[in-house]
Amino acid sequence: MSHTDIKSLDEFKILARKKTHRVLFNYFSTGAGDDQTLEDSKAAFKRFRLKPRIFRSDPNPDLGVSIQGHPIRVPFGIAPTAIQASAHPDGESATAKAAEGFGTIMILSSVSQTTIEDVRKSAPNAHLWMQTYVFKDRRNTIDIVRRAEKEGFEAIVVTVDSPVMGRFSQIRVKYEEFKEDESEEQEKQNIPMKSLVNVRGCPSDIERAKAAGDVNITQYVRNQIGESYPKWEDLASLRKLTNLPIILKGIISAESAREAVAAGVQGIIVSAHGGRQLDGVQAPIEALPEIVDALTGSNVEVYLDGGVRSGRDVFKALAIGAKAVFIGRPIIWGLICDGTSGVKQVLQHVEDELVNTMSLCGCNRVAEITPSLVMHESQVLSKL
Amino acid sequence: MSHTDIKSLDEFKILARKKTHRVLFNYFSTGAGDDQTLEDSKAAFKRFRLKPRIFRSDPNPDLGVSIQGHPIRVPFGIAPTAIQASAHPDGESATAKAAEGFGTIMILSSVSQTTIEDVRKSAPNAHLWMQTYVFKDRRNTIDIVRRAEKEGFEAIVVTVDSPVMGRFSQIRVKYEEFKEDESEEQEKQNIPMKSLVNVRGCPSDIERAKAAGDVNITQYVRNQIGESYPKWEDLASLRKLTNLPIILKGIISAESAREAVAAGVQGIIVSAHGGRQLDGVQAPIEALPEIVDALTGSNVEVYLDGGVRSGRDVFKALAIGAKAVFIGRPIIWGLICDGTSGVKQVLQHVEDELVNTMSLCGCNRVAEITPSLVMHESQVLSKL
Amino acid sequence: MSHTDIKSLDEFKILARKKTHRVLFNYFSTGAGDDQTLEDSKAAFKRFRLKPRIFRSDPNPDLGVSIQGHPIRVPFGIAPTAIQASAHPDGESATAKAAEGFGTIMILSSVSQTTIEDVRKSAPNAHLWMQTYVFKDRRNTIDIVRRAEKEGFEAIVVTVDSPVMGRFSQIRVKYEEFKEDESEEQEKQNIPMKSLVNVRGCPSDIERAKAAGDVNITQYVRNQIGESYPKWEDLASLRKLTNLPIILKGIISAESAREAVAAGVQGIIVSAHGGRQLDGVQAPIEALPEIVDALTGSNVEVYLDGGVRSGRDVFKALAIGAKAVFIGRPIIWGLICDGTSGVKQVLQHVEDELVNTMSLCGCNRVAEITPSLVMHESQVLSKL
Amino acid sequence: MSHTDIKSLDEFKILARKKTHRVLFNYFSTGAGDDQTLEDSKAAFKRFRLKPRIFRSDPNPDLGVSIQGHPIRVPFGIAPTAIQASAHPDGESATAKAAEGFGTIMILSSVSQTTIEDVRKSAPNAHLWMQTYVFKDRRNTIDIVRRAEKEGFEAIVVTVDSPVMGRFSQIRVKYEEFKEDESEEQEKQNIPMKSLVNVRGCPSDIERAKAAGDVNITQYVRNQIGESYPKWEDLASLRKLTNLPIILKGIISAESAREAVAAGVQGIIVSAHGGRQLDGVQAPIEALPEIVDALTGSNVEVYLDGGVRSGRDVFKALAIGAKAVFIGRPIIWGLICDGTSGVKQVLQHVEDELVNTMSLCGCNRVAEITPSLVMHESQVLSKL
Repeated sequence: MSHTDIKSLDEFKILARKKTHRVLFNYFSTGAGDDQTLEDSKAAFKRFRLKPRIFRSDPNPDLGVSIQGHPIRVPFGIAPTAIQASAHPDGESATAKAAEGFGTIMILSSVSQTTIEDVRKSAPNAHLWMQTYVFKDRRNTIDIVRRAEKEGFEAIVVTVDSPVMGRFSQIRVKYEEFKEDESEEQEKQNIPMKSLVNVRGCPSDIERAKAAGDVNITQYVRNQIGESYPKWEDLASLRKLTNLPIILKGIISAESAREAVAAGVQGIIVSAHGGRQLDGVQAPIEALPEIVDALTGSNVEVYLDGGVRSGRDVFKALAIGAKAVFIGRPIIWGLICDGTSGVKQVLQHVEDELVNTMSLCGCNRVAEITPSLVMHESQVLSKL
Repeated sequence: MSHTDIKSLDEFKILARKKTHRVLFNYFSTGAGDDQTLEDSKAAFKRFRLKPRIFRSDPNPDLGVSIQGHPIRVPFGIAPTAIQASAHPDGESATAKAAEGFGTIMILSSVSQTTIEDVRKSAPNAHLWMQTYVFKDRRNTIDIVRRAEKEGFEAIVVTVDSPVMGRFSQIRVKYEEFKEDESEEQEKQNIPMKSLVNVRGCPSDIERAKAAGDVNITQYVRNQIGESYPKWEDLASLRKLTNLPIILKGIISAESAREAVAAGVQGIIVSAHGGRQLDGVQAPIEALPEIVDALTGSNVEVYLDGGVRSGRDVFKALAIGAKAVFIGRPIIWGLICDGTSGVKQVLQHVEDELVNTMSLCGCNRVAEITPSLVMHESQVLSKL
Repeated sequence: MSHTDIKSLDEFKILARKKTHRVLFNYFSTGAGDDQTLEDSKAAFKRFRLKPRIFRSDPNPDLGVSIQGHPIRVPFGIAPTAIQASAHPDGESATAKAAEGFGTIMILSSVSQTTIEDVRKSAPNAHLWMQTYVFKDRRNTIDIVRRAEKEGFEAIVVTVDSPVMGRFSQIRVKYEEFKEDESEEQEKQNIPMKSLVNVRGCPSDIERAKAAGDVNITQYVRNQIGESYPKWEDLASLRKLTNLPIILKGIISAESAREAVAAGVQGIIVSAHGGRQLDGVQAPIEALPEIVDALTGSNVEVYLDGGVRSGRDVFKALAIGAKAVFIGRPIIWGLICDGTSGVKQVLQHVEDELVNTMSLCGCNRVAEITPSLVMHESQVLSKL
Repeated sequence: MSHTDIKSLDEFKILARKKTHRVLFNYFSTGAGDDQTLEDSKAAFKRFRLKPRIFRSDPNPDLGVSIQGHPIRVPFGIAPTAIQASAHPDGESATAKAAEGFGTIMILSSVSQTTIEDVRKSAPNAHLWMQTYVFKDRRNTIDIVRRAEKEGFEAIVVTVDSPVMGRFSQIRVKYEEFKEDESEEQEKQNIPMKSLVNVRGCPSDIERAKAAGDVNITQYVRNQIGESYPKWEDLASLRKLTNLPIILKGIISAESAREAVAAGVQGIIVSAHGGRQLDGVQAPIEALPEIVDALTGSNVEVYLDGGVRSGRDVFKALAIGAKAVFIGRPIIWGLICDGTSGVKQVLQHVEDELVNTMSLCGCNRVAEITPSLVMHESQVLSKL
């Protein structure tokens, strides 16, 4: 399968489901609570309809954008997702190589199974951003920022929607369900587990847990992150710590967006954490309009992740006012399917769809993707 | 199964279905008419979306509230539900012990199978409220209020949505359906029936009915309650009868809420009677905004029951303006599963979810759960 | 089965399906086109939610209404439906006896299989209204009006939504479908066919058609009615012809309602012809508000039929402003089930539900069923 | 089957599915992306409800309209669809004969398998319009316009929504899916392929592709059309080239509609290209109101295609303001079923339904089909 053969990104998901362990597929694919936000984040994109303009398209539209002052080839990048080495043996390095080859940004998760240093080694010229939590032990955050700076990462992405973990013991439950028809021992051996090597202050809990036969991945991650309760003071400290742009990921309300501007950040990512934190949160694409509106006049760049499953979705987010979009789960499906090559195919498919959408809507550069080209279904007939 | 293993309260329901008689499961689980309000009461919560604030959460948010002047550990309690001894041998006493141990309010149904006095004996320090109907023979109401006062109950909850019974012969119909594949005699023997011992003026109809082979539970309850047609004069009499706070349960319109304030009550519970009285009634969570609005400036506390199935639902009701929320059916599922322990697990799961939701929304105390943190789906884009 | 055993009118439909021929069940149950209006007429009722008032109900609410100056025991009657002798051997006479015994209005269809005179003989004291088309040969209309007057019918109901027939060859298609597994000859013999005896000017087409082996019922009816294209001049002629109240059945727009008032009619029935004429027509209950609004201040009574499947539906229509409601298909199901007794059970079930709904909403007489007791789902939160 | 036997146009589709090759059925029936616009274009018609007027209908309503100055018997015609000789051996000629016999317009696709000249020969008196792309090599466009003029075509329809192709490799994917259970060789032989003979400048790619065993039809068409990127300058050139009316097909926004007026076109077709170009585009029938509104006062005629599946749909589009409607896929189903006769049956069924709808709504001529006869579901209760 190559990207030119597929109709939609869902085909990567279908293939990935066959190629990975069920426990891991569940870990990557599911959300928190009743999965309302997980599903609604995707459905909400469809509630916006396109309103193309004719006779405006030139060949080869320019997808280039300037993100935090860096020219980036396309207005979409790779969202931070955890434990990529459980998706593919090459893990985060494979993803970084794809980002480098493709010419876009990869946000490296601090909950990774490859070190910051090794990821950089794999992709010396990649646009890398470093995601970090405000860890319970703040020294972990300092350590990660310092190392990211040293390795030439271009921004620090602070996840702000996770003062505590939002997912309950979902994985364990699902695990219990299918134990019935499989040998438990065999089950555990099949799960490709690696330590979370980036959070250096933490003991190697995964190794110990594996020895104890514990396969509850959510619990692993929860232990590494702890209950952190970040505050605006933490952001102020971080602001003093680094000259890198600081991006807040996980804002869904205009009020918090305004406070972020006042706090001097360089960007925010409108995000519901992939539906994995608080279920019932508004879909990012429907929260975007009021946030863009609230930040009019500021220099803070607004990005979005959550529910992006096609180049058309990227286009809609840009039209509403996002500067760029980040893609999460589809990258994991590509990674599972074929490592660096799989990730590139996913990115290429999105690019092809975005180029196509721009051409069909009459846009030759990203700046021409304006609000008049989309309409929310609740606005139908509102002009009459 | 412990509460830390489950993903949602629905798992208690699934387990309870396996552990109880079908006639009783139907009695507890179904609603009136076409079950529209039963289902819509749950669905309506999902039509409100959360809009979290970042960087505000401290560890261990304070869930404490003052309800009718009493400090209560959590802003949710146990709604009155009938015939709990048919759900578990320990019946209402088991539930009261759970409320006591958990530190919240239990509203005891007057249609109980344990006496007021025995419930109090089981849980000497519980915050107990006494539910009562305005019975056809008003002396029953007087008797119940007097005894509740004597046993240190802290409020009288008057059900106001039941001048007549709203459910038709639903149970009988369903009973007929499954008679085909089971011995009718065996069927009857399996249903754990006990008398409705709290309404003392009434004859022991259940014993007689059992002798006659009648298993129509709805009819039992109907006979005990009768057609009562309460009026505001009855409330005035009740007001004179007791100094306990009076709470009206079953208000769904702002007009009746305003009249309740004028009549000098201390609280109202916005409720559709669990979808068991009049089918087609507006979902409580969607009726709540206009009622809260109508009561602005009064000292009357507004509560809600109906469709609450998670801590997120509790949070939404509090955000819109409820002072506290009461939970019905999930308590019964916990009671069926494991008596006092099962009820505690249900309550603990809701608390865990509420704590989680508060932390993820940036609320450290209940007073910080404000309307700006929720948005109805019909309001999407309304600000643009 | 008695009416006290059932949960909803749908149970009569389920039973009727078992008791009648498939061709006839299809004839009675289906609609025109894609059945959009057929289904939407029912669904639209559910989009209105009830907003009860408390502490207002007295025992035994008074359901009596004055319809066209006659006191009628309940605010709902029997809509005109064709070929009732194909539903039950006693046909229209059985229905009339039920109406008489129950104390409400029956509208007799001119496309009946029992004569006006025989129907009256069966039910000497019934409140009978006579439905008529403006037939292609207007002498048929005159004949029917004259005979109805003579037999003491109390009103003339003119169907105004049928200048032509709206249903295409649906029945034939469905008939073809199931021919495969049944002998065609046997099939035809089983269908209880009788002539349309009321339209006297027409030849006995059904007898001839039966001889020719044609079982296309729609075609029968179409031939009897013809293409009539009634005009306001026809109404003026009719107005001169009789002193009986004239009711126009089949109005769905405020404009036509206003014209009807100007033309001097005594009533209109908001109706989509049971979804059997023009598919895609607005649901009657959603057309009702603007029509009631348009007729404020006139003496013209507004009724409704279409999609009424419970006493709650009757209540909603009355609340919005209908003076009475007419019920179609459920009457046929009762008739198929058990003749006069079956129709009475249907009527009684609706009455029981209406009484129950009135009591639960705080209404002691029909005049107290006011608009504030219902809210359309599109109005949720509109007050905030 | 004759048109008088069917209930809806869907029956032609069901029959066509049985009569044609799966690869071709998929080619004709599917859309781009997730098929959102394909499905929504049909569903959106149902969101408009009819509001009939009574007592206005005369027999034999006049369906005649003047389209671009030509009297046309009915206000609906045949939309351009590609490769009709793959649907039926007689191909575009069969369709043209049906249009001629029926008295309406056929828009001939430039991506046809019959030449302009041969189509005209088959139907000397047909109202033929010529669809053309602004081809990559503009000489093809000039050639087609010149030939269409010479053959007495009455208008030039320029597709403006296709600067590039919008469909990805959907057909190939579906083809792969069913290869498993069929011999690939046999598969290819069964597909009735013919060259795209109208675009004369292009080599006979289909013949070559067939020799190479390539059955990817989308790729064929894509190669013929190329990436064209038309501009308003191209329209200006075309304007100078011909005195025939120029119709722009594929406008969905009011802004582009206004620009088309300014550019001096004679008509526009509001269209989403049958959901085959950009998925997510607004449904044509919901885009129509604002476009009609924008063009008030101009002489430019507005037409619509997309999702029209009944005479009721035609009526709704006319009511909102379309001058005429064009029908795509149902024509193909008729063509597959029975060539010229099948297409005529489809047209006749739509006419019958339109006549019926007009009669039932009180319209005797097309000019009487006005906006007050339809209401969008979002406008329910808006008048109150």
